[in-house]
Amino acid sequence: MEKFMIIGERIHCISPVIRKALEERNPEPILKRAKEQLEAGAHYIDFNIGPAERDGEELMTWGVQLLQKEFNNVPLALDTANRKAIEAGLKVYNPINGKAIINSADAGGRIDLIDLAGEYQAKVIALCAKEGIPKDNDERMAYCQEMLERGLMAGLEPEDMLFDPLCLVIKGMQDQQMDVLESIRMMTEMGLLTTGGLSNVSNGCPKHVRPILDSTWLAMAMANGFSSAIVNPCDEEIMRTVKSCDIIRNASLYADSYLELNEGGFAFNA
Amino acid sequence: MEKFMIIGERIHCISPVIRKALEERNPEPILKRAKEQLEAGAHYIDFNIGPAERDGEELMTWGVQLLQKEFNNVPLALDTANRKAIEAGLKVYNPINGKAIINSADAGGRIDLIDLAGEYQAKVIALCAKEGIPKDNDERMAYCQEMLERGLMAGLEPEDMLFDPLCLVIKGMQDQQMDVLESIRMMTEMGLLTTGGLSNVSNGCPKHVRPILDSTWLAMAMANGFSSAIVNPCDEEIMRTVKSCDIIRNASLYADSYLELNEGGFAFNA
Repeated sequence: MEKFMIIGERIHCISPVIRKALEERNPEPILKRAKEQLEAGAHYIDFNIGPAERDGEELMTWGVQLLQKEFNNVPLALDTANRKAIEAGLKVYNPINGKAIINSADAGGRIDLIDLAGEYQAKVIALCAKEGIPKDNDERMAYCQEMLERGLMAGLEPEDMLFDPLCLVIKGMQDQQMDVLESIRMMTEMGLLTTGGLSNVSNGCPKHVRPILDSTWLAMAMANGFSSAIVNPCDEEIMRTVKSCDIIRNASLYADSYLELNEGGFAFNA
Repeated sequence: MEKFMIIGERIHCISPVIRKALEERNPEPILKRAKEQLEAGAHYIDFNIGPAERDGEELMTWGVQLLQKEFNNVPLALDTANRKAIEAGLKVYNPINGKAIINSADAGGRIDLIDLAGEYQAKVIALCAKEGIPKDNDERMAYCQEMLERGLMAGLEPEDMLFDPLCLVIKGMQDQQMDVLESIRMMTEMGLLTTGGLSNVSNGCPKHVRPILDSTWLAMAMANGFSSAIVNPCDEEIMRTVKSCDIIRNASLYADSYLELNEGGFAFNA
């Protein structure tokens, strides 16, 4: 089994520091967070600029070039609701160390982002949802199938698609957690790769509970074949869970020091 | 889904303190460890007296009566290689708060302990092994089937049997972990209950690594339906994993304080 892939979530316009840096085109806070995440073991950096309706194209272009220049053409996930901004980012993106990931398409109004991935030979996160939350795994898997077919038509390989079952919040949707986990197993058994925004799980929970609940959920998902996640790689609890599951899944060789090793992430200073 | 069942492992003749207490028939250290485990959330207390070839019958009788008298007829797992000692314990055991568990039968020379469980209306841990470690899940599941049939012939209900896939040590058997986890899923899908000696997983690993590796493995097993384990309930990392998985499996209702709650174990002071 492949090692688990970490997509670092910490460059996100919801963070006041990042939002300000994006507005001011100030590289320093953005590069700092990228470096921290890469040092902690991230394989990809998510660059989330939010809706970015006004200046999304220019902003995405700026950010992609900034991050790739500083960190050895680091692989990036381009994260915005603005399709043109995604395309602008793809135009300047250097895939030498890993294809760009479009974050994200869905089975509804954003399904054409799968075509865009095909056009630019990118990867794409395919959110198994159309309008709101799928009511059960029949619906979830129907969207998965629909997007897979769309991707194959667009010239993608199945491994260019990361299917996201939509991680649901425990507080409010506790009774659906096992279904979501089961859908990860179903996708894995179809030979597909999966991903998800892990922190959704513990949204609204007390601060000290969140890493525990998220990392437990993550281990359960990894038992079912979960292949990547959008997480905070600077969270030690999450990372030691990933490392331990990789050991148990026989994806990395056990050594007594495995928790201390950080060979896992992208070699940004190579 | 039912809540996960904790069988407390800490009264074990391998511990020098316990060995001495058993030899001297000194109640104090034994009752102390039982109380600690019950306070930490154990549902059953394992009473392990080792091979006990010389005085096993008398020793098991003494221990069962001691623990049940002190702790409100606490449910016990009777743990020894001495069949007569198990039988002596069953004779004085009070099942009012839960059937005794025989720890353990296997598919080889100890298969007749399944008959003993039938005779005394006890539960039994059924180790899916005959001679040494099963080489794969075909072998593991064949033993499971064989023991299930034996149990049904002996008048047991399937839920009186706790099938143990045999937790294997990571250091040396890293490549077999996913098979063991998969066998738990197969047994669960057959409607069977499962258990295992969790600490086998991290045997020989550095002390700080053990709870992390064990609890990660446990979460992965619980994703597959694992229904109980023989563990140290005083290990906070293990217990918070059990509690978190119970939340995710929707076996206990989420509350912001769920990690602090200890309503889970046997009510020994009721």
